[in-house]
Formats: sequence, structure tokens, C-alpha cells
Amino acid sequence: MCQLLSMNCNTPTDIVFSFTGFSERGGRTDEHKDGWGIAFFEEKGVRHFIDDKPAVESALAEMIKTHPIKSKNVIAHIRKATQGETSLQNCHPFIREAWGQEWVFAHNGDLKSFAPVLNGSYQPAGNTDSELAFCFLMQGLTQEFGDVAPSIEQVRQFLKQFSAEVASHGTFNFTLSNGAALYVHCSTKLHYVERQFPFTTAALSDENLAIDFSAVTTPQDRVAVIVTEPLTTNEQWTAFQTGELKVFVDGRVLPEFSEHQTSYQEPLRLVA
Amino acid sequence: MCQLLSMNCNTPTDIVFSFTGFSERGGRTDEHKDGWGIAFFEEKGVRHFIDDKPAVESALAEMIKTHPIKSKNVIAHIRKATQGETSLQNCHPFIREAWGQEWVFAHNGDLKSFAPVLNGSYQPAGNTDSELAFCFLMQGLTQEFGDVAPSIEQVRQFLKQFSAEVASHGTFNFTLSNGAALYVHCSTKLHYVERQFPFTTAALSDENLAIDFSAVTTPQDRVAVIVTEPLTTNEQWTAFQTGELKVFVDGRVLPEFSEHQTSYQEPLRLVA
Repeated sequence: MCQLLSMNCNTPTDIVFSFTGFSERGGRTDEHKDGWGIAFFEEKGVRHFIDDKPAVESALAEMIKTHPIKSKNVIAHIRKATQGETSLQNCHPFIREAWGQEWVFAHNGDLKSFAPVLNGSYQPAGNTDSELAFCFLMQGLTQEFGDVAPSIEQVRQFLKQFSAEVASHGTFNFTLSNGAALYVHCSTKLHYVERQFPFTTAALSDENLAIDFSAVTTPQDRVAVIVTEPLTTNEQWTAFQTGELKVFVDGRVLPEFSEHQTSYQEPLRLVA
Repeated sequence: MCQLLSMNCNTPTDIVFSFTGFSERGGRTDEHKDGWGIAFFEEKGVRHFIDDKPAVESALAEMIKTHPIKSKNVIAHIRKATQGETSLQNCHPFIREAWGQEWVFAHNGDLKSFAPVLNGSYQPAGNTDSELAFCFLMQGLTQEFGDVAPSIEQVRQFLKQFSAEVASHGTFNFTLSNGAALYVHCSTKLHYVERQFPFTTAALSDENLAIDFSAVTTPQDRVAVIVTEPLTTNEQWTAFQTGELKVFVDGRVLPEFSEHQTSYQEPLRLVA
């Protein structure tokens, strides 16, 4: 299996503190050493770094820790191979374009007897169940919404049904972003924390490092961090429920629109 | 305008020497300081680095020079903005997937009155003429060849016609690779050198640096380097002709198949 780390903020923020703890699990405090990757949105562009070496030994990972990159949406992953060999093309996160938007996806889990029919619009370069699921997802999204990019709420509704279908094949924890929102689905294990004013000091569980967030933030800042296993020892992490899909925008969970609009087909038809 | 650098080899080779000279043009020996980028194929995966800061000031560029990445196909670019602001999404090279292959593209030039009709299968994230041309190219390729990935020769024939059409709108020097071959089209200025046994010493023109290739190669190695302006002072660089398209495989120019097969439609029909 693998581990996921994501961040969503209302102002571009660096992920050095969280990534420092997370990357220790890529070979030192945990066994996820079959590659790693991280993607940072910056306006409509993406900085994408992947490596098939353990994160704890990677010069690239070291550079990310020493040269902070600020972003409002970050998706990171450390890999312990279950399906697909250790190679660059099998490293998460994966990227595909739709509607002129970059879509970034990382997965933790294992899908069995999963053989979706692809029409060719998105095809995996590697041979993981994860990239296959992502291509199937992008195919579904573009088929559903055609020429017009979907709204955040439309993507949420699509993902609810899609995730339930795919999760019937096994474990399907994933993070997904197009730079406008961060979509997180939990199948077995994910936690999140929302940091906001008044900021306090947090201490990493994987590394002897603490940070006083109040010294590096403004009162307006909001940051949500999502991770497989909590990264800090003195913050209140909330566990996702099985089958739960949460959408993060501007550093906090985006409430679902009103109760009566939650059926799958209705709002899509109204908005399309 | 911009400058292009590419490499194609028969064995994974690092591009540190050439990139060191090339990146000096990104703000020191030349004016191309509106961003840069480089992509390295590794099997079916791609390491992709882009930055909207000048290459000469970039920590990422420094890391690439100090931590050699070996690859058989590399595409690099330094940008001087003509169309589209300085931003991450406007940095070359651009990447799109087709047939489960990553396709990487960089462009030097300026296209005027260029407004191709896109069907939505590939759309630009930024607002450069370059990414627009690349999306139009990928759309054309996938429309032409449908479900089955084209052969190198099929791509060559497609690109000949495509490049001539697009070049009617202005300058269209480009490099393109899917990891199996490197396609290079010259509209105004490009040079290449093929390095092979017996290897000699080469000296950079942009930096006080020389390398004895015989010390770092085997007699079987072959490396082709393609660049806008020659990088070394003591090697024989060959200038591309206007309108010329060359295909590089295993470190050398791939000869075109026989003369009578060069018409555009014929070989496609025969092979498809």
C-alpha cells in the first residue's frame, strides 16, 4: 500500500513542514520506499516531481525541503508497490488534462478484478491499478460533462457515484485536484486537520521538528492538511469515514449544497 | 523568441555538459530569462521540470547540473516570452498523453493569425501559441491514427504535412518526443551534432568548461544533440535547412524509407 499527503489553502503556502515528516515514511520511519511524488499547483500550471527512489534518499526530495514552493493545492504520495513494478511511470501523482485544466491524482489502495473499458481518450503509461482508475475517472468526467468544464459541485456528485463503484473492487483512498478544489475519498484510512487563526505550535511525529505556525502566517490564512496517518502529535486530526468524499476549498471543507439537491442526476441536468 | 535543446541517444546519457552551457543563455550569456524547462524520458515515464524563473538563478536547474539524470530522450527549452505572460503554465516543454505514451513538445518561434479549431480532446492550460500548436498536433495525430499508436515513420509523414501548414503562420522550430524517437522541425534555426566513437574533447561556448567524452563513454555509445545555436566551439555542428524535419533514433538521424514511399497518404493507408 502507499500513503497520501495533500494540502489545500486559501493563500499559497509551503508544505515543507508536513512533507518533511511524510517523506521520513518513505524508507525510514515506514516502509514506503518504492518511489514518491509531489505536485504543486501554481495558477493553472503544475510543478510535478516524481522519483522511483526512496524519498529519504532522494536529492529531489531534499531540494523540496530546502527550497519551499508555495501552492494552494498540493498532492503527494509515497509508494509501496502492490501492482506494477518500481518504475518512474508507476509513480504517483499522475496528471492528465481536461478542459485546459491539469488534473492531478494519487491513490492509496489495491483494486482487484478491476478492468474498466477505456475508449482511448485517456490511457495509462504504466501498469498500476491506480493510473488505470485515474484514466477511467477522466474518461467518465469528460463523457459526463462534454464541452463545458464541470463546477466543483458537479465534480463532487460525479465522484460520489464513481468512487462507490470503483471501491467495490477494493481499497480506493484517493486525492484529486484541478487547482480549483481538492477532492478526497476515503475507503479505509485518511485524516485531516484544518489550521486557522489562532495558530499554534505543531510537532512532527516522524521527525524531531516543531513549528510555530503563528510566526509564519497571517490571521486570514487557512490551511487544510490531509494525510493517511496523522503527521503531528499535538493537533486534533479528524478521521474520514469509510466511503466519505470531502471537498476542500480555501483551506476548509466545502459544505455540500442543500440537502434536497444531493441526488446524483438532478443537479447535473439543471446546470448543464 | 526562445531556444531549444534536445538529446537523443542509444544508451541513457546525462545532459549535464550541454545543459550547463544552454542554461547560461537563460539570463547570463543571452536574454532567455522568462522561464525554462526540461523533460527526461525514462522507460515510459517522464521527469518533467519547469520553472518561470531564469535558468541561471534556478535552484532546480542547479540540482539538474549537480545530480545527473540519464535518459535516451531529453527536451529542454529556455523562454523569452513573445505570446503569453511569464507563468508556470506557459513554460515549455508541454506534455500530453496519447495511446498510453507521454508526448513532450517544445517550440521556438512565433505564430501569427493561428487559430486552429480544437475539438476538446487536447486543450491548452496556458495562453501561448506554442501550447496551442501542440494541442492541435496531438488532436491531429490521434484523429489520423485512431486506436493504434502510429509507427515512427507514420509520425514523420504526418509531421511533414502538419509542420508545413503551421509554419505558414510564422516560425515553427520544434522538438517532439514520445520516448521512442525525437522529431525535430526547423523553420529558421537549429543545429545538431552526432557524437560517436572515437569520442573527443568538447569545449562549451557559453561557459569555461570542457569535457573529454572518451572518458565517460563506451565505443558503442551514440549521442545526438540538437540545439538552436551550437553549444561547443570545437565540434562540427550541422545546420538544419528551412522546412526540414529530422527524426533521431538511437543517437543518429533515422534515414527516410525509400524514395517512392514519401507521398503522404500512401504509406499511412498501407500500414494502418
